[in-house]
Amino acid sequence: MSQEILIGKVAILLATLEESETAPFQPLLKGVHYCRGKVGAMNMEKVIAAVETAATRENLITENLYRENHALYHAILEALEGVTRGQFAIGDMKRTVGLRFAVVRGRPYTDKREGEWIAVAFYGTIGAPVKGLEHEAMGLGVNHI
Amino acid sequence: MSQEILIGKVAILLATLEESETAPFQPLLKGVHYCRGKVGAMNMEKVIAAVETAATRENLITENLYRENHALYHAILEALEGVTRGQFAIGDMKRTVGLRFAVVRGRPYTDKREGEWIAVAFYGTIGAPVKGLEHEAMGLGVNHI
Amino acid sequence: MSQEILIGKVAILLATLEESETAPFQPLLKGVHYCRGKVGAMNMEKVIAAVETAATRENLITENLYRENHALYHAILEALEGVTRGQFAIGDMKRTVGLRFAVVRGRPYTDKREGEWIAVAFYGTIGAPVKGLEHEAMGLGVNHI
Amino acid sequence: MSQEILIGKVAILLATLEESETAPFQPLLKGVHYCRGKVGAMNMEKVIAAVETAATRENLITENLYRENHALYHAILEALEGVTRGQFAIGDMKRTVGLRFAVVRGRPYTDKREGEWIAVAFYGTIGAPVKGLEHEAMGLGVNHI
Amino acid sequence: MSQEILIGKVAILLATLEESETAPFQPLLKGVHYCRGKVGAMNMEKVIAAVETAATRENLITENLYRENHALYHAILEALEGVTRGQFAIGDMKRTVGLRFAVVRGRPYTDKREGEWIAVAFYGTIGAPVKGLEHEAMGLGVNHI
Amino acid sequence: MSQEILIGKVAILLATLEESETAPFQPLLKGVHYCRGKVGAMNMEKVIAAVETAATRENLITENLYRENHALYHAILEALEGVTRGQFAIGDMKRTVGLRFAVVRGRPYTDKREGEWIAVAFYGTIGAPVKGLEHEAMGLGVNHI
Repeated sequence: MSQEILIGKVAILLATLEESETAPFQPLLKGVHYCRGKVGAMNMEKVIAAVETAATRENLITENLYRENHALYHAILEALEGVTRGQFAIGDMKRTVGLRFAVVRGRPYTDKREGEWIAVAFYGTIGAPVKGLEHEAMGLGVNHI
Repeated sequence: MSQEILIGKVAILLATLEESETAPFQPLLKGVHYCRGKVGAMNMEKVIAAVETAATRENLITENLYRENHALYHAILEALEGVTRGQFAIGDMKRTVGLRFAVVRGRPYTDKREGEWIAVAFYGTIGAPVKGLEHEAMGLGVNHI
Repeated sequence: MSQEILIGKVAILLATLEESETAPFQPLLKGVHYCRGKVGAMNMEKVIAAVETAATRENLITENLYRENHALYHAILEALEGVTRGQFAIGDMKRTVGLRFAVVRGRPYTDKREGEWIAVAFYGTIGAPVKGLEHEAMGLGVNHI
Repeated sequence: MSQEILIGKVAILLATLEESETAPFQPLLKGVHYCRGKVGAMNMEKVIAAVETAATRENLITENLYRENHALYHAILEALEGVTRGQFAIGDMKRTVGLRFAVVRGRPYTDKREGEWIAVAFYGTIGAPVKGLEHEAMGLGVNHI
Repeated sequence: MSQEILIGKVAILLATLEESETAPFQPLLKGVHYCRGKVGAMNMEKVIAAVETAATRENLITENLYRENHALYHAILEALEGVTRGQFAIGDMKRTVGLRFAVVRGRPYTDKREGEWIAVAFYGTIGAPVKGLEHEAMGLGVNHI
Repeated sequence: MSQEILIGKVAILLATLEESETAPFQPLLKGVHYCRGKVGAMNMEKVIAAVETAATRENLITENLYRENHALYHAILEALEGVTRGQFAIGDMKRTVGLRFAVVRGRPYTDKREGEWIAVAFYGTIGAPVKGLEHEAMGLGVNHI
């Protein structure tokens, strides 16, 4: 493969695994910047804001630089397509999400002209707004930055 | 959480990790049935068929029992929403996929009346039909069976 | 056909026909459980809730059993795709719906291993939030339960 | 209701009912033009063509008059949204349809300035390309003509 | 081409160009009715309402005549697909739009039986609810009326 | 506005206007790179390939540099959302397109850290595969590169 760092895989593992399970994967975290967070919500806007706020605060993207915000925004939307699977809505469809997320920024390709890319992953539950009436959901978005 | 077995997480790890990386997660595989496979394709139909064939051959679903085929089919489609992120097409959009997949069947909930559920996960690359012009993609679908 | 009871057809007729028109179809109702209801709304959530509440109250699904709620929920969403035809929204698109609905649960297949399935049908009007500026709409969703 | 002729309901009944079941609804057919047909296919294009051909042959629309073809085409697409429920594809998704369809043209509204409208309904099965592995599907589209 | 008046092109130019730039295109405006307007919003409903209100006030469509409202409504939705590109939402996705719009009604085809058609075009910006974090967006919808 | 060069507007005008109509807009072309082309097709893949080939041949993007191909690809897809308006397909839906396109690369923002962006616009006709049974269509996609 022409990728030497799998930023998508790193994001998936950071979102999916418990803290205690990530030990074997520490070597993968070398050479990337990342952050993790959690969000529970019945509307998309709150989920998007939670990821943007975390990524800005952790300096994964430069505040008010639109090209970086634009890259992150589309990576978030693509990851949410995986979470919502076909209808791009949560509360409007009478469902709620409880998600862990990870944002990873790095240089995945061996050809250094490819520059930096960003990956966003979500993992958690989606379901009715009743405790326990829910199943797992996951999404990954990747974009050049 | 009301789930004691996270079949989605198991499917994600089986699809995302290399064989050599799965050792720490062997305990998670207790109590579920699963299979893994690979498919490279420029059309959806071939990807769907690859997963259905593997799941049938490994006895994860009963051949010609429609309710099980129906449950698996919708789990596959939902997982493909995550892979394709918004437009449900591959070759028609001049892109190709190279995917590893896992199908996991089990009883995730502590309340045994919830019965069996099925999870399908994909992990791999999507991109132009030119080697290296591709990035990672992922998808997860979960359904009652 | 391998179906001996057409639960979808029954749901369509129960949603579409006036009470007085259903007499010739009474034999079709043997061997199925069903309920009917009405909902007028400018948001999806209210439509979904109306069907779920009716189906739970009439014991078509078991309250708080997720696999049954999950089956019904996806049947409702699929029926709403037919009603909304392409954009999954009502009031956000400045339109309103006035719908009659029916939920039918039964064993449609001659092979009894196929078990129970559920059908949800809507019939009514969709249009501008101005009386008379509306046309008919319909949708059907079917799922294994 | 401001509609005196429910062309959508007529189309639904013509598509859903067997010939022998339509007797009680003959009065509804007064004052509308309609045609019925059947199509089995693994691609959208064939389904669309079958309806267009039947409607043209039965003089429900004027051949080569674009405004009438355009009205019919969008009514067909909207009805197919109900049949396919979320992903606008058949064979590409490894599924096949066997459908009965009806096209109804008439003046539904009491206000005669509203002119003519057209309704297209489908009813039949959708499922795996294996006999019996299928369930019912339905769709309705309505447009001004 | 079988169209002698390109109502879509006229709508695009009226939405995209500044007043001062439209001089060379005055001849194109002969034989059509049109109106222009502006709307800034975080929800679809407000954008749709702005166009409907302008078109009604300028007598491009007849108030409370549903067939004309229906034609305009679908032309607006199609134009908004171009603006939103894939997910039919604005504020729910944490984005805002600032749009100029034009509605053009005329007889585009040389064959006069084709009658009147309507075109709706939007041009402006879409982006984060932060000044400057936005890029251009455009959409065109055309329908028979 | 924080944009000093409107690359989207330039792309729209280059796609929409005849050669003879572009004279007044020559000043807008200063400071950007652009190319124009034409494509008639019944499948998406051919449309995407026509734009990619033109943009590569005219050195608007660097061949085999994935980040630039990725940026262009998503701008093309977004522009095609505007052309196809809701269903991402052409021939599968029994329709054909005849399109002129323009690709524009430049630095739209006054803040030079925003770097280069790319805009893709289409303008032409979409309709039945019968001459004259078609109307105008348009689409615009913008991405950071």
